[in-house]
Amino acid sequence: MRTIDWVDGRIRIIDQTRLPLELCTIDIAEVDELVTHICSLAVRGAMALGVAGALGMALAATRAAESGADLDSELAAAADLLIAARPTAVNLGWGVRELLLARAGGADAGQLLTRALAIRDADIAASRALSERGAQLLAGARTVLTHCNAGALAGVEGGSALGVIGRLHADQPLELVYVCETRPLLQGSRLTAWELGRLGIPHRVIVDSAAAGLVAGGAVDAVVVGADRIAANGDVANKVGTLAHALAARHAGIPFVVAAPESTIDGATESGRDIPIEIRDEAEVLDVAGRRVAAPGSTGWNPAFDVTPVQLVTAVVTEARTIRGRAERALPVPDDLTELTPAGPATTAP
Amino acid sequence: MRTIDWVDGRIRIIDQTRLPLELCTIDIAEVDELVTHICSLAVRGAMALGVAGALGMALAATRAAESGADLDSELAAAADLLIAARPTAVNLGWGVRELLLARAGGADAGQLLTRALAIRDADIAASRALSERGAQLLAGARTVLTHCNAGALAGVEGGSALGVIGRLHADQPLELVYVCETRPLLQGSRLTAWELGRLGIPHRVIVDSAAAGLVAGGAVDAVVVGADRIAANGDVANKVGTLAHALAARHAGIPFVVAAPESTIDGATESGRDIPIEIRDEAEVLDVAGRRVAAPGSTGWNPAFDVTPVQLVTAVVTEARTIRGRAERALPVPDDLTELTPAGPATTAP
Repeated sequence: MRTIDWVDGRIRIIDQTRLPLELCTIDIAEVDELVTHICSLAVRGAMALGVAGALGMALAATRAAESGADLDSELAAAADLLIAARPTAVNLGWGVRELLLARAGGADAGQLLTRALAIRDADIAASRALSERGAQLLAGARTVLTHCNAGALAGVEGGSALGVIGRLHADQPLELVYVCETRPLLQGSRLTAWELGRLGIPHRVIVDSAAAGLVAGGAVDAVVVGADRIAANGDVANKVGTLAHALAARHAGIPFVVAAPESTIDGATESGRDIPIEIRDEAEVLDVAGRRVAAPGSTGWNPAFDVTPVQLVTAVVTEARTIRGRAERALPVPDDLTELTPAGPATTAP
Repeated sequence: MRTIDWVDGRIRIIDQTRLPLELCTIDIAEVDELVTHICSLAVRGAMALGVAGALGMALAATRAAESGADLDSELAAAADLLIAARPTAVNLGWGVRELLLARAGGADAGQLLTRALAIRDADIAASRALSERGAQLLAGARTVLTHCNAGALAGVEGGSALGVIGRLHADQPLELVYVCETRPLLQGSRLTAWELGRLGIPHRVIVDSAAAGLVAGGAVDAVVVGADRIAANGDVANKVGTLAHALAARHAGIPFVVAAPESTIDGATESGRDIPIEIRDEAEVLDVAGRRVAAPGSTGWNPAFDVTPVQLVTAVVTEARTIRGRAERALPVPDDLTELTPAGPATTAP
């Protein structure tokens, strides 16, 4: 089953807000419905959002062709809505812009759909390739820590960080994966633990703040996470909490590896300082399971992402290459590592 | 209102499991009831547990005197029960042992109660003194981050880290206190936010993992936390998540200050490696608000504390002195700082 797909002229997604207790799909016929589901995180994750951006534009084109509306104005309106839905996630905008580029090249609604489906297929292939590359880099790691969900549910199939973990486990069984629950929305305990259970990989869920103590105490061989946007200098924006794991990894001298497709690399953004950080509703912090837990009258602050500077990153693995970060070398570094520079490629793939 | 007190021959505690929605007290007539409430965290926090240990022993002595049971065997049984309730919290054992020492010196039940009440009064005085010392050290800080609850609810009155914050605010109004919610039991959003609201101090609740990004981004002038045990070399055991904040503080070059009474310093424990870390029920991680959120079949791992090495600590403030940690100096260091050494005082106070 795919996390996001095109079925009978509609976008079909797994509704991740209902996992792990129910596995339901939603069929989406209009762009504004898709935006609602992106905002509620029913569909989420860097790679899946790239495909959602492309399929969303194809959906707008299909509807315009059916109704006889003006294709370009419908595409422009859809692009604005989609990009605004998750401002930090560069892949979403990337998928949207790929379709605008195809349109600028003269594509009609049918050709736009073909382009979106090619992006979906490329995502599956990219996941496989980057997982292999990451597993090679981390060969020998027996206990791994990950944050949030960079799994099959964050892409079309396979995923990024969980793709690496799945491949490591296939090569030689892992002893344990520590899964950070990932407050406030608990994508780790809900989604990553669910995926690892289906894959038969031994794992334990921890509160996010337990990671540093486990890493410092030598219980973890490597940290592997996904990314929502990688700036041209190698700074990584990912789910809030990632930076703390990177600091712990440096403290313990273990590798901190980011697994992400090339489309996550945003050559137009110079450094982490230039990445806008989405601030989400304070209710996600103040309420738990729909019930207020915080003291009455107290307010919250809910940044959805943080930025890990390239100085804390051991390497970024993509479907095309292994990019060396600037962390002190906790890994035997293969010869073919690339240094990412502000002049590096931005939107060359997939 | 006091968090823990002796009223009409019983121990009265505020039931912190019902805060912030209800403010209820519990009157405790037997040591095993007290142990139950310590385990459920109805009463918690380093300073309050020290007083709970002492009052618990006084309660055992009072009951023995009433029933004619053998005082020494009743005290020995109570001591075993109390110390086992929270193995990481050194103050609990300290309070218990102070009463055993008094008994070894010939105290009867009435004199044991007098000793326990003196420990309660000393706790109130210690909170006031260390708050003043911490506020002097951090004078000028306008935004502060704290973790868990080291407030009035963690002592008898006033608290440690929140005592410092309250005093800072009294000296010059603080702009903002970032309150880490403190998963799994949310003592930050439930208790610390409640106390700050009552004190009229502006604050925002954040998920624990958002702290590093805020600290790295320059939003925080200082981190102030309490401690559950401080080893002879200055390593600090505190609520799980503290280490990540200390790593973030070092990364950002801001002070990381620990506020704790002298009774928290355990001269018999050489370093953080020797501090036992309490592992609590995995259900605290896997369930939220009594409802399972983690994937069915997944297991959890729930250490209640972590250890921050002295290399990350700027200073420890107690009621008696300011102890220099080994973090690079993010503060103008006053001349009277003491270096804590393995030969330093252990149980000199209160």
